[in-house]
Amino acid sequence: VALDLQTISDRMEIEDLLTAYSIAIDSKQFDDLLPLFTEDAVCDYGSLGSPKGPSAIADLIHTTLKSLDATQHLLGKSVIVVDGDAADVRTYLISQHIRDAAPGEKHYFIGGEYIDTMVRTPDGWKFQTRRLSRMWTQGDRAVIQRST
Amino acid sequence: VALDLQTISDRMEIEDLLTAYSIAIDSKQFDDLLPLFTEDAVCDYGSLGSPKGPSAIADLIHTTLKSLDATQHLLGKSVIVVDGDAADVRTYLISQHIRDAAPGEKHYFIGGEYIDTMVRTPDGWKFQTRRLSRMWTQGDRAVIQRST
Amino acid sequence: VALDLQTISDRMEIEDLLTAYSIAIDSKQFDDLLPLFTEDAVCDYGSLGSPKGPSAIADLIHTTLKSLDATQHLLGKSVIVVDGDAADVRTYLISQHIRDAAPGEKHYFIGGEYIDTMVRTPDGWKFQTRRLSRMWTQGDRAVIQRST
Repeated sequence: VALDLQTISDRMEIEDLLTAYSIAIDSKQFDDLLPLFTEDAVCDYGSLGSPKGPSAIADLIHTTLKSLDATQHLLGKSVIVVDGDAADVRTYLISQHIRDAAPGEKHYFIGGEYIDTMVRTPDGWKFQTRRLSRMWTQGDRAVIQRST
Repeated sequence: VALDLQTISDRMEIEDLLTAYSIAIDSKQFDDLLPLFTEDAVCDYGSLGSPKGPSAIADLIHTTLKSLDATQHLLGKSVIVVDGDAADVRTYLISQHIRDAAPGEKHYFIGGEYIDTMVRTPDGWKFQTRRLSRMWTQGDRAVIQRST
Repeated sequence: VALDLQTISDRMEIEDLLTAYSIAIDSKQFDDLLPLFTEDAVCDYGSLGSPKGPSAIADLIHTTLKSLDATQHLLGKSVIVVDGDAADVRTYLISQHIRDAAPGEKHYFIGGEYIDTMVRTPDGWKFQTRRLSRMWTQGDRAVIQRST
């Protein structure tokens, strides 16, 4: 057998962390993001900013998305490499952003990849770093830009 | 180890149930839906209806989709919480509906979430309830509406 | 327990093979495709061709995609049936192809399914056959056709 039970269990718990992030932001339960990050976690959202620490991360996401009518961050398969209490994770996503009041195009698609490092803590796996690497976009970026 | 072998096995079998549903409807093998539901299963498809029981569920899906040229119900990651012989499952999806004969836009995208309860039966996991929660749409809803 | 540890491990390693293919082509690391296929592997890409062997397969993909500005091959859930040292695998995908210099529509979406057979080798699971079954497209197919 190539993968042992510990690795398999870790991979499933890491998938749970990935989905918890998507559901928190798409349901606008931004406080649910706080326990997903280590105290010194850093996110890299490109031109949107690079917040550090759970509160700053949740605040930036809140500010960016609060006035959108809907978002969906759909996650495809992940590459998960567990090494003891650390993991490197890459996950393809398609995210959709809807703003009904926008003139013209009301949506903004982003196709990309989350590139994460995670660590095992007494409270389970948490994000240490998260970077969104955009691969393509479609629709009107102003859907997001006007949302502040 | 956080997850035991039984839970891991259950989660994979639940993923198999989720994909069986998508493949049945996208391949228009609507009879393949029948064994996926408990006898008293209820689906909530919003304005399309809330059929009860495997036959009524399969009939409604058949009627709704039969005249479309193609559909795809792509499933992203799921949140799966197993509790003994029951499970709560949430799964993001993007579905696409194509109707070549439609004037103008020939497609209708739905982004949303399946919110399911499942139960373990002697024949494996089955849907007890399934609800489609729409998060966004794109394209022309008439692609579906004209399909009856 | 329905699934044993060997089957669960195999399914996860098969998922790793699936993601390795997507990442190789989307990052334009076409040489990374070579170890993913058996020596006698055959791919069926429809009108694009049916290359045989790792080199021919990588060459065709390289030629088809090299001049695109971005691609993403996002994989949804898979149906994985392992039978000893062989496996039948079906995986839904949405792929996006971007060509910034294209007139008009700059993108081409394909929704479809990879239908694979895989075999266990001393170097892990490899593709024996891979077929892309298109379910729908959206955008401008010329985004791909002009890329040679």
